[in-house]
Amino acid sequence: MYEVEVKVPAELESVRDRLAELEADPLATVVQEDTYYDAPHRSFPDTDEALRIRRERRRDDSGDGIVRITYKGPLVDDDSKTREEVETGVDDAEEMAAILANLGFDPAATVQKTRERFALEGYTITLDVVDGVGEFVEVETETDEDEIDAARDGAFDVLERLGLDPDEQLRTSYLELALEG
Amino acid sequence: MYEVEVKVPAELESVRDRLAELEADPLATVVQEDTYYDAPHRSFPDTDEALRIRRERRRDDSGDGIVRITYKGPLVDDDSKTREEVETGVDDAEEMAAILANLGFDPAATVQKTRERFALEGYTITLDVVDGVGEFVEVETETDEDEIDAARDGAFDVLERLGLDPDEQLRTSYLELALEG
Repeated sequence: MYEVEVKVPAELESVRDRLAELEADPLATVVQEDTYYDAPHRSFPDTDEALRIRRERRRDDSGDGIVRITYKGPLVDDDSKTREEVETGVDDAEEMAAILANLGFDPAATVQKTRERFALEGYTITLDVVDGVGEFVEVETETDEDEIDAARDGAFDVLERLGLDPDEQLRTSYLELALEG
Repeated sequence: MYEVEVKVPAELESVRDRLAELEADPLATVVQEDTYYDAPHRSFPDTDEALRIRRERRRDDSGDGIVRITYKGPLVDDDSKTREEVETGVDDAEEMAAILANLGFDPAATVQKTRERFALEGYTITLDVVDGVGEFVEVETETDEDEIDAARDGAFDVLERLGLDPDEQLRTSYLELALEG
Protein backbone atom coordinates (compact mmCIF):
# COMPACT_ATOMS: atom_id res chain seq x y z
CA MET A 1 0.00 0.00 0.00
CA TYR A 2 1.29 3.46 -0.92
CA GLU A 3 0.40 6.81 0.56
CA VAL A 4 -0.13 9.63 -1.94
CA GLU A 5 0.12 12.97 -0.19
CA VAL A 6 0.30 16.57 -1.41
CA LYS A 7 0.84 19.49 0.91
CA VAL A 8 0.69 23.27 0.43
CA PRO A 9 1.04 26.25 2.77
CA ALA A 10 -2.41 27.74 3.42
CA GLU A 11 -4.55 30.21 5.33
CA LEU A 12 -6.64 27.69 7.22
CA GLU A 13 -9.64 29.97 7.79
CA SER A 14 -10.57 30.24 4.09
CA VAL A 15 -9.97 26.51 3.57
CA ARG A 16 -12.43 25.75 6.39
CA ASP A 17 -15.06 27.85 4.56
CA ARG A 18 -14.52 25.95 1.29
CA LEU A 19 -14.72 22.60 3.12
CA ALA A 20 -18.10 23.63 4.56
CA GLU A 21 -19.36 24.62 1.07
CA LEU A 22 -18.16 21.27 -0.35
CA GLU A 23 -19.88 19.50 2.57
CA ALA A 24 -16.73 17.61 3.55
CA ASP A 25 -17.17 15.37 6.60
CA PRO A 26 -15.36 16.69 9.67
CA LEU A 27 -13.29 14.01 11.45
CA ALA A 28 -11.56 14.22 14.79
CA THR A 29 -9.02 16.92 15.61
CA VAL A 30 -5.90 15.40 17.10
CA VAL A 31 -2.57 16.47 18.53
CA GLN A 32 0.42 14.50 17.26
CA GLU A 33 3.84 14.43 18.81
CA ASP A 34 6.30 12.77 16.48
CA THR A 35 9.79 11.73 17.48
CA TYR A 36 12.12 10.92 14.59
CA TYR A 37 15.14 8.70 15.04
CA ASP A 38 18.66 8.56 13.69
CA ALA A 39 19.97 5.12 12.76
CA PRO A 40 23.32 3.84 14.02
CA HIS A 41 24.33 2.20 10.74
CA ARG A 42 23.19 4.55 8.01
CA SER A 43 22.13 8.16 7.52
CA PHE A 44 18.35 8.41 7.12
CA PRO A 45 18.66 11.92 5.60
CA ASP A 46 20.95 10.39 2.93
CA THR A 47 18.89 7.26 2.31
CA ASP A 48 15.62 9.25 2.44
CA GLU A 49 14.13 6.93 5.06
CA ALA A 50 12.51 7.77 8.37
CA LEU A 51 11.73 5.96 11.60
CA ARG A 52 9.18 7.59 13.84
CA ILE A 53 7.26 7.07 17.08
CA ARG A 54 3.99 8.98 17.00
CA ARG A 55 1.87 9.76 20.06
CA GLU A 56 -1.59 10.87 18.96
CA ARG A 57 -4.41 12.06 21.18
CA ARG A 58 -7.71 13.89 20.77
CA ARG A 59 -7.20 17.63 21.20
CA ASP A 60 -9.14 17.66 24.48
CA ASP A 61 -7.52 14.53 26.00
CA SER A 62 -4.28 14.18 27.89
CA GLY A 63 -1.87 11.26 28.08
CA ASP A 64 -0.04 9.43 25.30
CA GLY A 65 -3.23 8.35 23.49
CA ILE A 66 -2.52 6.05 20.57
CA VAL A 67 1.12 5.21 19.90
CA ARG A 68 2.44 3.95 16.58
CA ILE A 69 5.86 3.13 15.19
CA THR A 70 6.34 3.84 11.50
CA TYR A 71 9.05 3.16 8.96
CA LYS A 72 8.97 5.30 5.82
CA GLY A 73 10.95 4.15 2.80
CA PRO A 74 12.55 6.36 0.13
CA LEU A 75 10.33 8.30 -2.32
CA VAL A 76 9.07 6.15 -5.20
CA ASP A 77 7.22 9.05 -6.90
CA ASP A 78 8.71 12.48 -6.34
CA ASP A 79 5.69 14.35 -7.79
CA SER A 80 3.40 13.25 -5.00
CA LYS A 81 5.87 12.41 -2.22
CA THR A 82 4.77 8.77 -2.51
CA ARG A 83 6.71 6.37 -0.32
CA GLU A 84 6.20 3.00 1.29
CA GLU A 85 4.99 3.07 4.88
CA VAL A 86 5.06 0.23 7.38
CA GLU A 87 3.34 0.84 10.69
CA THR A 88 1.96 -0.85 13.77
CA GLY A 89 0.39 0.31 17.00
CA VAL A 90 2.45 -0.23 20.14
CA ASP A 91 1.24 -0.37 23.73
CA ASP A 92 3.92 1.72 25.41
CA ALA A 93 5.74 4.66 23.82
CA GLU A 94 8.46 4.82 26.49
CA GLU A 95 9.30 1.12 26.24
CA MET A 96 9.42 1.30 22.43
CA ALA A 97 11.70 4.34 22.67
CA ALA A 98 13.94 2.44 25.12
CA ILE A 99 14.18 -0.54 22.75
CA LEU A 100 15.26 1.81 19.96
CA ALA A 101 17.76 3.56 22.26
CA ASN A 102 19.28 0.22 23.28
CA LEU A 103 19.64 -0.70 19.59
CA GLY A 104 21.50 2.56 18.94
CA PHE A 105 18.67 4.60 17.41
CA ASP A 106 18.71 8.08 18.94
CA PRO A 107 15.96 10.74 18.88
CA ALA A 108 16.86 13.29 16.19
CA ALA A 109 13.94 15.71 16.34
CA THR A 110 10.41 16.11 17.65
CA VAL A 111 7.56 17.73 15.71
CA GLN A 112 4.26 18.62 17.39
CA LYS A 113 1.16 19.61 15.47
CA THR A 114 -2.59 19.97 15.74
CA ARG A 115 -4.41 18.23 12.87
CA GLU A 116 -8.00 19.01 11.93
CA ARG A 117 -9.25 16.34 9.55
CA PHE A 118 -11.99 16.12 6.93
CA ALA A 119 -13.05 13.39 4.53
CA LEU A 120 -14.04 14.17 0.92
CA GLU A 121 -14.59 11.63 -1.85
CA GLY A 122 -11.99 9.10 -0.73
CA TYR A 123 -9.42 11.71 0.24
CA THR A 124 -8.43 12.85 3.71
CA ILE A 125 -7.88 16.59 4.00
CA THR A 126 -5.85 17.73 6.98
CA LEU A 127 -5.49 21.29 8.26
CA ASP A 128 -2.22 21.36 10.14
CA VAL A 129 -0.91 23.88 12.65
CA VAL A 130 2.71 22.85 13.12
CA ASP A 131 4.37 24.28 16.24
CA GLY A 132 7.09 26.74 15.28
CA VAL A 133 6.68 26.03 11.56
CA GLY A 134 3.35 27.28 10.15
CA GLU A 135 -0.04 26.29 8.70
CA PHE A 136 -0.55 23.79 5.91
CA VAL A 137 -3.17 21.70 4.13
CA GLU A 138 -2.46 18.10 3.23
CA VAL A 139 -4.54 16.00 0.86
CA GLU A 140 -3.85 12.30 0.98
CA THR A 141 -5.14 8.88 0.10
CA GLU A 142 -3.88 5.32 0.05
CA THR A 143 -3.49 3.48 -3.22
CA ASP A 144 -1.97 0.46 -4.95
CA GLU A 145 1.23 0.99 -6.88
CA ASP A 146 -0.48 1.00 -10.32
CA GLU A 147 -2.98 3.70 -9.29
CA ILE A 148 -0.48 6.25 -7.98
CA ASP A 149 -0.81 8.65 -10.96
CA ALA A 150 -4.60 8.71 -10.82
CA ALA A 151 -4.56 9.21 -7.04
CA ARG A 152 -2.12 12.11 -7.36
CA ASP A 153 -4.23 13.81 -10.06
CA GLY A 154 -7.26 13.43 -7.81
CA ALA A 155 -5.39 15.03 -4.91
CA PHE A 156 -4.41 18.00 -7.11
CA ASP A 157 -8.07 18.38 -8.11
CA VAL A 158 -9.15 18.44 -4.45
CA LEU A 159 -6.57 21.16 -3.71
CA GLU A 160 -7.93 23.33 -6.54
CA ARG A 161 -11.49 22.94 -5.28
CA LEU A 162 -10.26 24.18 -1.90
CA GLY A 163 -8.91 27.33 -3.56
CA LEU A 164 -5.32 26.15 -3.24
CA ASP A 165 -2.64 25.93 -5.92
CA PRO A 166 -1.06 22.49 -6.53
CA ASP A 167 1.98 24.33 -7.94
CA GLU A 168 2.72 25.55 -4.42
CA GLN A 169 3.22 21.95 -3.38
CA LEU A 170 5.79 21.63 -0.66
CA ARG A 171 7.93 18.51 -0.91
CA THR A 172 9.73 19.30 2.32
CA SER A 173 8.57 17.29 5.34
CA TYR A 174 7.52 18.96 8.58
CA LEU A 175 10.58 17.36 10.09
CA GLU A 176 12.82 19.12 7.55
CA LEU A 177 10.94 22.40 7.95
CA ALA A 178 11.30 22.17 11.73
CA LEU A 179 15.03 21.44 11.43
CA GLU A 180 15.44 24.39 9.00
CA GLY A 181 13.43 26.71 11.25
CA MET B 1 13.38 -3.70 36.46
CA TYR B 2 15.47 -6.86 36.22
CA GLU B 3 14.37 -10.38 35.50
CA VAL B 4 15.98 -13.08 37.64
CA GLU B 5 15.59 -16.46 36.00
CA VAL B 6 17.04 -19.88 36.70
CA LYS B 7 16.46 -22.87 34.44
CA VAL B 8 17.23 -26.56 34.76
CA PRO B 9 16.50 -29.62 32.59
CA ALA B 10 13.69 -31.63 34.20
CA GLU B 11 11.24 -34.52 33.97
CA LEU B 12 8.07 -32.47 33.94
CA GLU B 13 5.78 -35.19 35.31
CA SER B 14 7.43 -35.34 38.75
CA VAL B 15 7.63 -31.54 38.92
CA ARG B 16 3.87 -31.36 38.34
CA ASP B 17 3.34 -33.68 41.31
CA ARG B 18 5.49 -31.50 43.57
CA LEU B 19 3.69 -28.33 42.42
CA ALA B 20 0.38 -29.97 43.41
CA GLU B 21 1.78 -30.88 46.85
CA LEU B 22 3.03 -27.30 47.33
CA GLU B 23 -0.40 -26.02 46.23
CA ALA B 24 1.11 -23.75 43.55
CA ASP B 25 -1.50 -21.80 41.55
CA PRO B 26 -1.82 -23.07 37.99
CA LEU B 27 -1.80 -20.24 35.42
CA ALA B 28 -2.55 -20.42 31.70
CA THR B 29 -0.70 -22.77 29.36
CA VAL B 30 0.52 -20.90 26.30
CA VAL B 31 2.31 -21.57 23.03
CA GLN B 32 5.08 -19.09 22.23
CA GLU B 33 6.70 -18.61 18.87
CA ASP B 34 9.80 -16.46 19.19
CA THR B 35 11.66 -14.96 16.27
CA TYR B 36 15.12 -13.65 17.07
CA TYR B 37 16.78 -11.03 14.92
CA ASP B 38 20.30 -10.27 13.74
CA ALA B 39 21.36 -6.62 13.81
CA PRO B 40 22.92 -4.92 10.78
CA HIS B 41 25.51 -2.97 12.78
CA ARG B 42 26.72 -5.31 15.49
CA SER B 43 26.77 -9.00 16.34
CA PHE B 44 24.20 -9.80 19.04
CA PRO B 45 25.92 -13.13 19.83
CA ASP B 46 29.12 -11.12 20.51
CA THR B 47 27.46 -8.30 22.48
CA ASP B 48 25.19 -10.74 24.35
CA GLU B 49 22.05 -8.85 23.38
CA ALA B 50 18.85 -10.11 21.79
CA LEU B 51 15.96 -8.64 19.87
CA ARG B 52 12.84 -10.76 19.67
CA ILE B 53 9.28 -10.71 18.39
CA ARG B 54 7.12 -13.10 20.44
CA ARG B 55 3.71 -14.35 19.37
CA GLU B 56 1.93 -15.91 22.35
CA ARG B 57 -1.44 -17.64 22.34
CA ARG B 58 -3.42 -19.89 24.67
CA ARG B 59 -2.71 -23.54 23.83
CA ASP B 60 -6.25 -24.07 22.49
CA ASP B 61 -6.48 -20.84 20.45
CA SER B 62 -5.25 -20.13 16.95
CA GLY B 63 -3.97 -16.87 15.44
CA ASP B 64 -1.11 -14.63 16.52
CA GLY B 65 -2.57 -13.95 19.98
CA ILE B 66 -0.53 -11.40 21.91
CA VAL B 67 2.52 -9.96 20.17
CA ARG B 68 5.44 -8.35 21.97
CA ILE B 69 8.79 -6.94 20.95
CA THR B 70 11.60 -7.35 23.46
CA TYR B 71 15.15 -6.14 23.75
CA LYS B 72 17.41 -8.06 26.13
CA GLY B 73 20.63 -6.46 27.25
CA PRO B 74 23.87 -8.23 28.22
CA LEU B 75 24.03 -10.29 31.43
CA VAL B 76 24.55 -8.17 34.55
CA ASP B 77 24.65 -11.19 36.91
CA ASP B 78 25.97 -14.38 35.38
CA ASP B 79 24.85 -16.59 38.33
CA SER B 80 21.19 -16.02 37.65
CA LYS B 81 21.16 -15.04 33.99
CA THR B 82 19.98 -11.57 35.06
CA ARG B 83 19.71 -9.05 32.25
CA GLU B 84 17.77 -5.91 31.50
CA GLU B 85 14.61 -6.40 29.48
CA VAL B 86 12.65 -3.75 27.65
CA GLU B 87 9.37 -4.81 26.14
CA THR B 88 6.11 -3.53 24.72
CA GLY B 89 3.06 -5.10 23.14
CA VAL B 90 2.56 -4.42 19.43
CA ASP B 91 -0.65 -4.66 17.42
CA ASP B 92 0.66 -6.41 14.33
CA ALA B 93 3.50 -8.96 14.25
CA GLU B 94 3.90 -8.83 10.46
CA GLU B 95 4.14 -5.03 10.33
CA MET B 96 6.66 -5.00 13.20
CA ALA B 97 8.71 -7.67 11.40
CA ALA B 98 8.57 -5.57 8.20
CA ILE B 99 9.80 -2.46 10.04
CA LEU B 100 12.74 -4.47 11.40
CA ALA B 101 13.46 -5.94 7.94
CA ASN B 102 13.47 -2.45 6.39
CA LEU B 103 15.93 -1.30 9.06
CA GLY B 104 18.24 -4.21 8.22
CA PHE B 105 17.35 -6.57 11.07
CA ASP B 106 16.95 -10.10 9.68
CA PRO B 107 15.32 -13.13 11.34
CA ALA B 108 18.08 -15.36 12.70
CA ALA B 109 16.14 -18.21 14.34
CA THR B 110 12.70 -19.22 15.54
CA VAL B 111 12.00 -21.11 18.77
CA GLN B 112 8.57 -22.61 19.53
CA LYS B 113 7.58 -23.91 22.93
CA THR B 114 4.61 -24.83 25.09
CA ARG B 115 4.75 -23.21 28.54
CA GLU B 116 2.71 -24.43 31.49
CA ARG B 117 2.84 -21.81 34.23
CA PHE B 118 2.37 -21.82 38.00
CA ALA B 119 2.64 -19.11 40.65
CA LEU B 120 4.29 -19.78 44.03
CA GLU B 121 5.23 -17.15 46.63
CA GLY B 122 6.11 -14.36 44.20
CA TYR B 123 7.85 -16.63 41.73
CA THR B 124 6.59 -17.85 38.37
CA ILE B 125 7.41 -21.49 37.66
CA THR B 126 7.27 -22.50 34.03
CA LEU B 127 7.28 -26.04 32.66
CA ASP B 128 8.61 -25.77 29.13
CA VAL B 129 8.43 -28.23 26.26
CA VAL B 130 10.73 -26.71 23.64
CA ASP B 131 10.24 -28.08 20.12
CA GLY B 132 13.31 -30.04 19.04
CA VAL B 133 15.23 -29.16 22.23
CA GLY B 134 13.76 -30.81 25.35
CA GLU B 135 11.94 -30.23 28.66
CA PHE B 136 12.91 -27.64 31.24
CA VAL B 137 11.72 -25.85 34.37
CA GLU B 138 12.26 -22.13 34.78
CA VAL B 139 11.84 -20.20 38.01
CA GLU B 140 11.73 -16.47 37.63
CA THR B 141 10.76 -13.20 39.25
CA GLU B 142 11.21 -9.50 38.64
CA THR B 143 13.27 -7.40 41.01
CA ASP B 144 15.05 -4.09 41.50
CA GLU B 145 18.78 -4.00 40.96
CA ASP B 146 19.63 -4.04 44.69
CA GLU B 147 17.48 -7.13 45.36
CA ILE B 148 18.98 -9.37 42.67
CA ASP B 149 20.98 -11.59 45.09
CA ALA B 150 18.01 -12.23 47.38
CA ALA B 151 15.73 -12.96 44.42
CA ARG B 152 18.25 -15.45 43.00
CA ASP B 153 18.60 -17.25 46.36
CA GLY B 154 14.81 -17.47 46.54
CA ALA B 155 14.67 -18.98 43.05
CA PHE B 156 17.25 -21.61 44.03
CA ASP B 157 15.15 -22.46 47.09
CA VAL B 158 12.05 -22.91 44.92
CA LEU B 159 13.97 -25.27 42.62
CA GLU B 160 15.04 -27.43 45.59
CA ARG B 161 11.48 -27.64 46.88
CA LEU B 162 10.48 -28.91 43.42
CA GLY B 163 13.05 -31.73 43.75
CA LEU B 164 15.40 -30.05 41.28
CA ASP B 165 19.09 -29.26 41.66
CA PRO B 166 20.15 -25.59 41.26
CA ASP B 167 23.63 -26.87 40.35
CA GLU B 168 22.19 -28.21 37.13
CA GLN B 169 21.34 -24.64 36.13
CA LEU B 170 21.55 -24.15 32.42
CA ARG B 171 22.86 -20.75 31.39
CA THR B 172 22.32 -21.46 27.72
CA SER B 173 19.23 -19.85 26.20
CA TYR B 174 16.64 -21.87 24.29
CA LEU B 175 17.78 -19.95 21.24
CA GLU B 176 21.35 -21.17 21.71
CA LEU B 177 20.18 -24.72 22.47
CA ALA B 178 18.04 -24.70 19.33
CA LEU B 179 20.94 -23.42 17.23
CA GLU B 180 23.25 -26.10 18.73
CA GLY B 181 20.66 -28.84 18.16
